[in-house]
Amino acid sequence: MTPYVARRRVDWGDCDAAGIVFYPNYFRWMDSVFHELTESLGFDQRRLQAEFALFGTPLVDAGCTFKAPARYGDDLEIGVAVTRVGQSSLSLLYRFACTERAVAEGREARIFVQASASGLAKAPIPAPLRPKLERFLRDDSDGG
Amino acid sequence: MTPYVARRRVDWGDCDAAGIVFYPNYFRWMDSVFHELTESLGFDQRRLQAEFALFGTPLVDAGCTFKAPARYGDDLEIGVAVTRVGQSSLSLLYRFACTERAVAEGREARIFVQASASGLAKAPIPAPLRPKLERFLRDDSDGG
Amino acid sequence: MTPYVARRRVDWGDCDAAGIVFYPNYFRWMDSVFHELTESLGFDQRRLQAEFALFGTPLVDAGCTFKAPARYGDDLEIGVAVTRVGQSSLSLLYRFACTERAVAEGREARIFVQASASGLAKAPIPAPLRPKLERFLRDDSDGG
Amino acid sequence: MTPYVARRRVDWGDCDAAGIVFYPNYFRWMDSVFHELTESLGFDQRRLQAEFALFGTPLVDAGCTFKAPARYGDDLEIGVAVTRVGQSSLSLLYRFACTERAVAEGREARIFVQASASGLAKAPIPAPLRPKLERFLRDDSDGG
Repeated sequence: MTPYVARRRVDWGDCDAAGIVFYPNYFRWMDSVFHELTESLGFDQRRLQAEFALFGTPLVDAGCTFKAPARYGDDLEIGVAVTRVGQSSLSLLYRFACTERAVAEGREARIFVQASASGLAKAPIPAPLRPKLERFLRDDSDGG
Repeated sequence: MTPYVARRRVDWGDCDAAGIVFYPNYFRWMDSVFHELTESLGFDQRRLQAEFALFGTPLVDAGCTFKAPARYGDDLEIGVAVTRVGQSSLSLLYRFACTERAVAEGREARIFVQASASGLAKAPIPAPLRPKLERFLRDDSDGG
Repeated sequence: MTPYVARRRVDWGDCDAAGIVFYPNYFRWMDSVFHELTESLGFDQRRLQAEFALFGTPLVDAGCTFKAPARYGDDLEIGVAVTRVGQSSLSLLYRFACTERAVAEGREARIFVQASASGLAKAPIPAPLRPKLERFLRDDSDGG
Repeated sequence: MTPYVARRRVDWGDCDAAGIVFYPNYFRWMDSVFHELTESLGFDQRRLQAEFALFGTPLVDAGCTFKAPARYGDDLEIGVAVTRVGQSSLSLLYRFACTERAVAEGREARIFVQASASGLAKAPIPAPLRPKLERFLRDDSDGG
């Protein structure tokens, strides 16, 4: 399994008064990399909305384990793997590293939804997107 | 002239690695206080969209002069005055102070717009909102 | 158990293009409310640093389950409970609600640390702070 | 005059409920690009602090004129020019464009400061940095 790899630079404004990354930014980066991944597969939010009548891909759950602090100027390498592709749901794993040092490991569970009379309702993952996501499926037995 | 006064606490995450407010947050607070003001006048964005068919009130120009640093835990008092009410445009002045100390002075120029075939087009400020904004008009001659 | 209750308004800028809260903001609010809680107990970060020689209270883990979308103008009530007080570690539970509707439930695991020759090292929770945190301990058997 | 050119992608989370960039993000990008520029010249904040005993390069003034909305997925090209190099002060101009379309034009006035007994005090721009900044000086007569 070769995960998708994205890169983000830690900006001055991403850090708090202790000089380390203000932690909500890890979630901002995960969201940003999710969109980068789906766009790279040809399915950005605009296409999901226009062609598949989806409202979007909101979060059901998100989490992050923090292993070592990152600081201003650090270059983060973010490996993304897909850990589950359900009918309407998608789980992702994000590994943040800085020059080989593990920095954080994040998780997102998303759901594909469409607008409905009563609000938002589950919608199937578009058929042509599914196999593209499955290419990034990670065998959970390969350790962590 | 009695300006509208809002309050914001400087959060831990609002500060940068130097321990002072990361400056884009002043603009985030100005935007937040603009919405607080218009909501207090009975004209939040939802009503502007639903009842007056407006797209919104985007910025034409914004600026801020920084006078003294603010830090984690500081309570900011933000006085807002209206400096101009045009046909479709609105200018605002924001004075940030912390226990009587002037911290920053910001400016926003906004425009009321509606969606049009070619994108966004100027729209008049809703008639019932205009006098309410004019109540906060500041005579520029009262110094600075 | 009476949890600490904080309030936050969903700002215009907190929402994404789908009109619902951009999810990293829930973590920003949790961090903000953590600081509000410790400050209310008389132990803000400045005192932790100055009097107890701590570097800070960084995150070991954080997570959030999203139950219903929140939107611009929503008033969030955030109930905070302490779920564990260890030697150096602290776990918290945050329940976000909007007019009785459950919006999200978040978790933070923090650690008290001091600077050391090799980076950051665990430090005990200050003795006078411990009983104050324990007052917010939530019996996990009271359901969820 | 060839300005320094940086690039930033508009992320999903950078946009507001109207689907256009939430305007404080332009200032976040300006700050980010300022740091990218100084780092490219060999003078990041860490070196300014460690080698030149500076506290930092805080803002005295910042502003932005908004010309056309930018949206999720837009690639912004940000040309930076230096408009003034004073003893301790530096002014910068940022032009945001998206596929040749002018999006915004921002301005920052910064000051180099060191810690002093009474707070922060002006400090001269480090001598080896000055000529490197002057290479980006823009003749104001070249229009705008």
